[in-house]
Amino acid sequence: MNAAISGVTGYAGMQLYALLQEHPEIETINVYQHDLEDAIPLIELNPRLHLTSPQLAYPYDSQAIMDDNDLIFFATPAGVTSELADPYLAADFPVIDLSGDFRLKDPIEYQKWYKKTPADQAALSAAYYGLTDIYENPGARYVANPGCYATATLLGLAPAVMCDLIEPDSIVVDAKSGLSGAGKALTQSAHFSQANENLQVYKANQHKHIPEILAELKKWNPKVKQLQFMTTLVPIDRGIMSTIYAKVKPGVTSNTVLAHYHDLYKDNPFIEVTGETLPDIKAVLGTNDCKIGLVLNPTTGYLMIVSVIDNMLKGAAGQAVQNMNQLFNFPVTTGLALTPVAF
Amino acid sequence: MNAAISGVTGYAGMQLYALLQEHPEIETINVYQHDLEDAIPLIELNPRLHLTSPQLAYPYDSQAIMDDNDLIFFATPAGVTSELADPYLAADFPVIDLSGDFRLKDPIEYQKWYKKTPADQAALSAAYYGLTDIYENPGARYVANPGCYATATLLGLAPAVMCDLIEPDSIVVDAKSGLSGAGKALTQSAHFSQANENLQVYKANQHKHIPEILAELKKWNPKVKQLQFMTTLVPIDRGIMSTIYAKVKPGVTSNTVLAHYHDLYKDNPFIEVTGETLPDIKAVLGTNDCKIGLVLNPTTGYLMIVSVIDNMLKGAAGQAVQNMNQLFNFPVTTGLALTPVAF
Amino acid sequence: MNAAISGVTGYAGMQLYALLQEHPEIETINVYQHDLEDAIPLIELNPRLHLTSPQLAYPYDSQAIMDDNDLIFFATPAGVTSELADPYLAADFPVIDLSGDFRLKDPIEYQKWYKKTPADQAALSAAYYGLTDIYENPGARYVANPGCYATATLLGLAPAVMCDLIEPDSIVVDAKSGLSGAGKALTQSAHFSQANENLQVYKANQHKHIPEILAELKKWNPKVKQLQFMTTLVPIDRGIMSTIYAKVKPGVTSNTVLAHYHDLYKDNPFIEVTGETLPDIKAVLGTNDCKIGLVLNPTTGYLMIVSVIDNMLKGAAGQAVQNMNQLFNFPVTTGLALTPVAF
Amino acid sequence: MNAAISGVTGYAGMQLYALLQEHPEIETINVYQHDLEDAIPLIELNPRLHLTSPQLAYPYDSQAIMDDNDLIFFATPAGVTSELADPYLAADFPVIDLSGDFRLKDPIEYQKWYKKTPADQAALSAAYYGLTDIYENPGARYVANPGCYATATLLGLAPAVMCDLIEPDSIVVDAKSGLSGAGKALTQSAHFSQANENLQVYKANQHKHIPEILAELKKWNPKVKQLQFMTTLVPIDRGIMSTIYAKVKPGVTSNTVLAHYHDLYKDNPFIEVTGETLPDIKAVLGTNDCKIGLVLNPTTGYLMIVSVIDNMLKGAAGQAVQNMNQLFNFPVTTGLALTPVAF
Repeated sequence: MNAAISGVTGYAGMQLYALLQEHPEIETINVYQHDLEDAIPLIELNPRLHLTSPQLAYPYDSQAIMDDNDLIFFATPAGVTSELADPYLAADFPVIDLSGDFRLKDPIEYQKWYKKTPADQAALSAAYYGLTDIYENPGARYVANPGCYATATLLGLAPAVMCDLIEPDSIVVDAKSGLSGAGKALTQSAHFSQANENLQVYKANQHKHIPEILAELKKWNPKVKQLQFMTTLVPIDRGIMSTIYAKVKPGVTSNTVLAHYHDLYKDNPFIEVTGETLPDIKAVLGTNDCKIGLVLNPTTGYLMIVSVIDNMLKGAAGQAVQNMNQLFNFPVTTGLALTPVAF
Repeated sequence: MNAAISGVTGYAGMQLYALLQEHPEIETINVYQHDLEDAIPLIELNPRLHLTSPQLAYPYDSQAIMDDNDLIFFATPAGVTSELADPYLAADFPVIDLSGDFRLKDPIEYQKWYKKTPADQAALSAAYYGLTDIYENPGARYVANPGCYATATLLGLAPAVMCDLIEPDSIVVDAKSGLSGAGKALTQSAHFSQANENLQVYKANQHKHIPEILAELKKWNPKVKQLQFMTTLVPIDRGIMSTIYAKVKPGVTSNTVLAHYHDLYKDNPFIEVTGETLPDIKAVLGTNDCKIGLVLNPTTGYLMIVSVIDNMLKGAAGQAVQNMNQLFNFPVTTGLALTPVAF
Repeated sequence: MNAAISGVTGYAGMQLYALLQEHPEIETINVYQHDLEDAIPLIELNPRLHLTSPQLAYPYDSQAIMDDNDLIFFATPAGVTSELADPYLAADFPVIDLSGDFRLKDPIEYQKWYKKTPADQAALSAAYYGLTDIYENPGARYVANPGCYATATLLGLAPAVMCDLIEPDSIVVDAKSGLSGAGKALTQSAHFSQANENLQVYKANQHKHIPEILAELKKWNPKVKQLQFMTTLVPIDRGIMSTIYAKVKPGVTSNTVLAHYHDLYKDNPFIEVTGETLPDIKAVLGTNDCKIGLVLNPTTGYLMIVSVIDNMLKGAAGQAVQNMNQLFNFPVTTGLALTPVAF
Repeated sequence: MNAAISGVTGYAGMQLYALLQEHPEIETINVYQHDLEDAIPLIELNPRLHLTSPQLAYPYDSQAIMDDNDLIFFATPAGVTSELADPYLAADFPVIDLSGDFRLKDPIEYQKWYKKTPADQAALSAAYYGLTDIYENPGARYVANPGCYATATLLGLAPAVMCDLIEPDSIVVDAKSGLSGAGKALTQSAHFSQANENLQVYKANQHKHIPEILAELKKWNPKVKQLQFMTTLVPIDRGIMSTIYAKVKPGVTSNTVLAHYHDLYKDNPFIEVTGETLPDIKAVLGTNDCKIGLVLNPTTGYLMIVSVIDNMLKGAAGQAVQNMNQLFNFPVTTGLALTPVAF
């Protein structure tokens, strides 16, 4: 099978390329880039790739992409696939879109949070929100790969919200991310002398993942109306920790909570519920795993949920490969049995 | 004036020594250490001190301490001053105690959280909880210097709780600290290969600062009954960020909140209310300052308060010097006009 | 094929376990531990391992190890295999020894640098120093896997020394390592508050890798008599940069140097000579690669060589797997096509 | 006394401002900025400054500067003072120039290394190279404050070179710097995801401090002809470690070396010779100190010198204040008794 990637210069695209290199079902990876006029050596486009033989990067051309590949991954910034998706949608060609453009179903919401022109309502409706550890793809060819914060937070909240264990208006999320989440663009907040030895709260109440998370929570439990969600940059390369607080409903005990979490995730090879032994970020670095710890405070009635992922893998490229596996009926762990070492 | 320090080998004691070296009212700093039989060169006790001339460290002896000094600072671990305080209390000799031993007024609470034998009830009652940016010392000679997390959190919450701006049962605190807060003892969680590139939640619902914070909040507003408080180790040397979430009461607006914060702190040279421009940790590193940012989310009704301090200064040695200034009626900023550079 | 590991609690052993999990020729990994009386769940021995199914760790027993496995890896500290190697040597059973015990051929040198009892002279002589990117295993069943600093430095120096390009008495090595090289033991220099935001020169002129490097250099060029070699701890998790300075012989040009380097390594899949584009550590993190940059200063006559590796992979577990591949005639890259992402 | 600063937005200028705030001889600090048309609040120019009362920043105007101040500090990039110095030179007005523009005496050398138009030969000749721990200002009013790497390296080499202890053609310097040395400009190599967990060798044989260092070494000992000098970026905020290797002359022993170092620096309050106990960077962070460790390897004949400074203080603003103290005959430590804490 041949896979196309658009956007291999960014961190998520690089990680995706590396995963596909080792994926046993992928024969060829073809890279396409918008601003090229002619094919150039791929290593010139991104000297950080580990190529085992010389490859080319090609100018972006949707027809050539569909002719030569079995699917395309877009690891492009917001606003790109809204404009480029049409030919693939028309041809029912498989797309896995790592950007946020098809995650929200409501074009007005998209415009409000992304400040960009949304895709058509019909196209948005047809896309599948690929939170693969929870959902089965109903046959959609266009997959909106979830956001990194959204993945960590939703996986952490799913059993609690689905099984009505918590007060729906009491959810507070304090999420922390490493700098790779801020991307490759040179910015003040990602300048070493600014980011190192520092914590930076950013985009207060304005993070694009808020409507994305809320939409899923509402699907799972219509009593959830709002979400208090905040993000802090921490001086590490990779990893997200989403620390979630919510009041449990009367009568809900630690054992109830734990039983529901174990039940939802019992057959999932990527998710481990660690109970009161709270996971740290290093436990998941380099893997496609999500680890979830749970502590119920009997004095306050608050449940604390600690959900950790590698933002580049489960939060981006790993989940994208998992979505490809689901779309093509490969075993779910194909190409995702990674060999990390957590010190 | 001469000042004694017991516990100059730890990080807070070192920081305190450095501050007293530059304090214009301090002529001599005498260091006393428990496990010494004879006086030794101070530089052997702690090679990291910056001495301008050779000094000695003396064996601990309460009578000699009171004879030769005007006050004593204890920068010792929990459980030490509970046993050593009596002679100073009996003599009404000034003590500034950086440990937690005299912070809680209830010996049973102390025993529950600290798992150590408490000081006498009378002694605990007589001690002053030295949150100097809020309180005036009523004349007490024994000062319990507040904990680092407690300081950041209490200063962040004071106006909201005192002025009844928030729902008292909705307070959630997600506090983060650098590794100096974990001290000098070699531990697994402070091992570089474990702590670096990692986030570690610890002591879930069991942190000793919980009862300390709660006691003050209850004083300020008896409607506060409990506190959801959690701590995370972040890979930086110094600094605490206490991120606080609470639902505002009906009718409370951003402007109301801001007005109350500005009002409480308007004459305080160390506290800056930064409003919606949220402070980062680097803004206070190397200073005795606390900076407080505030964002009210109109959709969820949650107020987020971001309170940052340098845990070694405002959270330990800086506040201890501030308490000395208060006790001896020196101007509050004496010896605390530090010259940090935040990049 | 079944592989035994002794020493899976340390960082190198953990990394080795992870590599063998994905190695296509390895069916079962059996873990043996010295201080066990009975088999215990492996995850209890090391909770950081990523097990896909429950495994046991067994008490150390050389006969059982040889009965149930095709080779054993020792990832144990210095002084262990000197005492345990005999049964394997007697049975000519394959051993890959990641410790330093069989790297030096001279028992007196071993004793001088390691301060421990050496193995027998005959056993030392029979062992193969497995610098696999340079040597072919001549049929030895006991492989001494090279040290991390030694690997980076020797690969950086090999063409220059072998081809007589540099003045043999002018070599100066300034090598830097991340903290994983300092191991799992809690020490003052690996305490986060000490190691972070710091550089620490250590073991001046006393590092155990000095005689190891020098022995190979002398084999390659008897004119080399001594080596100035120094090590600095840098606040990163993984990676070694060996910066090497040496005066080139009269008439040697940049082009000569580059040609010799390209020539020696041209068929090596793991080594890249990057010329004047000097490699950074991130270019090799997570890989079994060594990258070597070269700049000749025409003014001073000094050649600077920058050699970078991942100390846990090429500097330990990766090279150990490479040695296994060589010993069993598997293709050299088997199990070593890793998928790192260098930002 | 009133001091002017031009260039308070950069890191060195910020550090200088902070030092002058606490300097007992400075009454007012006036800030001037080139691109201003009108005076603006200083806090708008640089929100990171710790102002105790509102201040203005003024448009740059050399006449106003000389009218209202007793000296000016330039913390500007290379190429600025070459163009702006004339009025001050003409008026013999005191200037302390933190840039490199007046450090080299030879305009051709300046042009070669800086790729900019040099100042006049006469002006260059009149300027004093203010390595204040070695030199006495002969009465010059224009002070060229030395570079950070140059300071650490020259102080480390001075006794060895002056007293002819080492072979003049054997000096190799491997210098490491934290990221603040790279400045405030957003660059790829200072992007957190690039710089963190990484080591980056840069400007191989092209660093501007090479001619600066070499010029002084030649003054001290004309046998020195060249210098092998290399720089590596390490992931820390502040600090330089200059690791220097040189072969000692026949007959030179450890004791000889140590005696000469102690002798040269015995009355210097800022320099400590630590002998074989090698200093780490944390020993000097936050201070104007330079610490120098020395190890002679009897086997190789190489002396290793480890010289550490805080690049923002001794390497920039601290030395600038020291130059001011020298120029105005204040005691050398005035305003430089800093209170750091090295963990």
